[in-house]
Amino acid sequence: MKKTLYIFQNGELRRKDNSLYFETEERKRYIPVENTNDIYIFGEVDVSKRFLEFAAQKEIIVHYFNHYGYYVGSFYPREHLNSGHVVLKQAEHYIDPGKRLELARLFVQGSIRQMERVLKYYRPRLSEPEKLEKALQSIEQEAVKLDQAETVEQLMAVEGHIREAYYASFDAIIRHPDFVFDKRTKRPPHNRLNALISFGNSIVYTMCLSEIYKTYLDPRIGFLHSTNFRRFSLNLDIAEIFKPIIVDRLIFALVNKKMLSSKHFEKLTNGIVLNEEGRKLFVSELEKKMQTTVQHRHLGKSVSYRRLIRLELYKVQKHILGEKTYEPYAARW
Amino acid sequence: MKKTLYIFQNGELRRKDNSLYFETEERKRYIPVENTNDIYIFGEVDVSKRFLEFAAQKEIIVHYFNHYGYYVGSFYPREHLNSGHVVLKQAEHYIDPGKRLELARLFVQGSIRQMERVLKYYRPRLSEPEKLEKALQSIEQEAVKLDQAETVEQLMAVEGHIREAYYASFDAIIRHPDFVFDKRTKRPPHNRLNALISFGNSIVYTMCLSEIYKTYLDPRIGFLHSTNFRRFSLNLDIAEIFKPIIVDRLIFALVNKKMLSSKHFEKLTNGIVLNEEGRKLFVSELEKKMQTTVQHRHLGKSVSYRRLIRLELYKVQKHILGEKTYEPYAARW
Repeated sequence: MKKTLYIFQNGELRRKDNSLYFETEERKRYIPVENTNDIYIFGEVDVSKRFLEFAAQKEIIVHYFNHYGYYVGSFYPREHLNSGHVVLKQAEHYIDPGKRLELARLFVQGSIRQMERVLKYYRPRLSEPEKLEKALQSIEQEAVKLDQAETVEQLMAVEGHIREAYYASFDAIIRHPDFVFDKRTKRPPHNRLNALISFGNSIVYTMCLSEIYKTYLDPRIGFLHSTNFRRFSLNLDIAEIFKPIIVDRLIFALVNKKMLSSKHFEKLTNGIVLNEEGRKLFVSELEKKMQTTVQHRHLGKSVSYRRLIRLELYKVQKHILGEKTYEPYAARW
Repeated sequence: MKKTLYIFQNGELRRKDNSLYFETEERKRYIPVENTNDIYIFGEVDVSKRFLEFAAQKEIIVHYFNHYGYYVGSFYPREHLNSGHVVLKQAEHYIDPGKRLELARLFVQGSIRQMERVLKYYRPRLSEPEKLEKALQSIEQEAVKLDQAETVEQLMAVEGHIREAYYASFDAIIRHPDFVFDKRTKRPPHNRLNALISFGNSIVYTMCLSEIYKTYLDPRIGFLHSTNFRRFSLNLDIAEIFKPIIVDRLIFALVNKKMLSSKHFEKLTNGIVLNEEGRKLFVSELEKKMQTTVQHRHLGKSVSYRRLIRLELYKVQKHILGEKTYEPYAARW
């Protein structure tokens, strides 16, 4: 299976003939092109045009993150899988309010089911399961409203309330004085737990973008997230299904196992972010998680989380082509 | 209006504080960030991450083209009021039968006007102008039906009849025993004149595709040519406007000036194509033609044919965004 290359050092991405390499002052490291899915740049890196040309041929996408670990943008090669038919169908499902609402609702429902799954997983493992029980009840109550929502905005509002209840139960799962949830804060996050959520989510958005490139879908046309102010939005939709089971569970594990501590963070004037050491640790554990496999009900075999994302995209594709109604992935552990 | 910066030299794109600049061995040129919409890289250019970060903040998109001028890919910032919007509008104009018909009709009308323009140009230059006169009359008669066409298929049928009359007059313009039109044949062409038309058209399709990559339009969604079985179709639509004045006139010139002869062709088992020498000659003359300038009525200045194609695309973009109804380019020589 192809891998993600994370670059934290400063240096240059270069090409020599049909090889790609990363060069720092100390050394030169070859990049196994056939085995690389995408490249995440965190360090101060110069990239030559010849590098990008060859990367594009090999369908390697390059994603940039800034000094604080925020996603900046991506080098997106010219579409290689090309289907006017799929993009039209995708646009049709966006333009038609009913079709858009149906898909958006499925994404929200899928996302909520995953949040519930996470809470149910931790419930029997806690000394005070009541808090999660309460959160689960209020989520269930609120979720009923999804069926009545008549616009994407209404869906978003319901999803927002549910997410609040979900996040509020993080403190019951984590119980660590250095990692208190308080409330969701972004750009910048105001505490460590929020910094972890923001960083983790941005990586999952990027992973989803990389996988979209390998389908006929157009990343610009999302359904739950509207197609306007972000360059890419379909990846945000898909990420909804995976954030709880990938990012949130990883955060719980890293904090509860004391692998992450306050030394992995740095204070900004008005917030807090992971420092380089923290980011390295986080992505290396995330990468391990992405490679782990889960049993897939329909396929009857084990697939990695990365593969699950791709399968999810194929399902969305089948939905917009009218072949099969999209059924969001539901974790079963 | 913000501008596009084209970089043909080799060098480096760098940032210093809140300035962006392009540096070559000889000099350093500052980039007016507030006034730059996007950057097209044709030379061998290294780009630093800090450059892209600031460009992303300023919503500047960076597009890469390879040594041959083909589009390779783009650096897309995280947020940008974006082509997702344009592609949706484009799809809307395809999905809505009325909107699609309107645009398709404009392409056919534009194309026919250019065919007439070519015939009118040659009419006074021939010893037997009657043949062109007759063709022009039958084109005019047939063209009336365009207004009544209610489907794209009907438009296509009218356009087919007109194109037949147009091609039938090639023999009057060329009058060379080695270059007889007979009838339009493709894949493979059955005679030399057809081989020239096929080759010339394919180059113009590609030129249009390259120019589309310099706009926000999606090449997969055409209007006259349906969006289904070809990878790209918008370029075929646009090419309709330019084939007569670029390809056909070039063919007439090359044959009548005896620059092309039977030695530039090679026979296949079931057809005939240009050989390497012929292709080289053709593209080098075509490239010269693309660089020549024509007076542009609205801009009040001379622009190259290549630029004309781009301007045509901007007009289509304005049309689908509802800013201004598309008016196809009409040659005035």
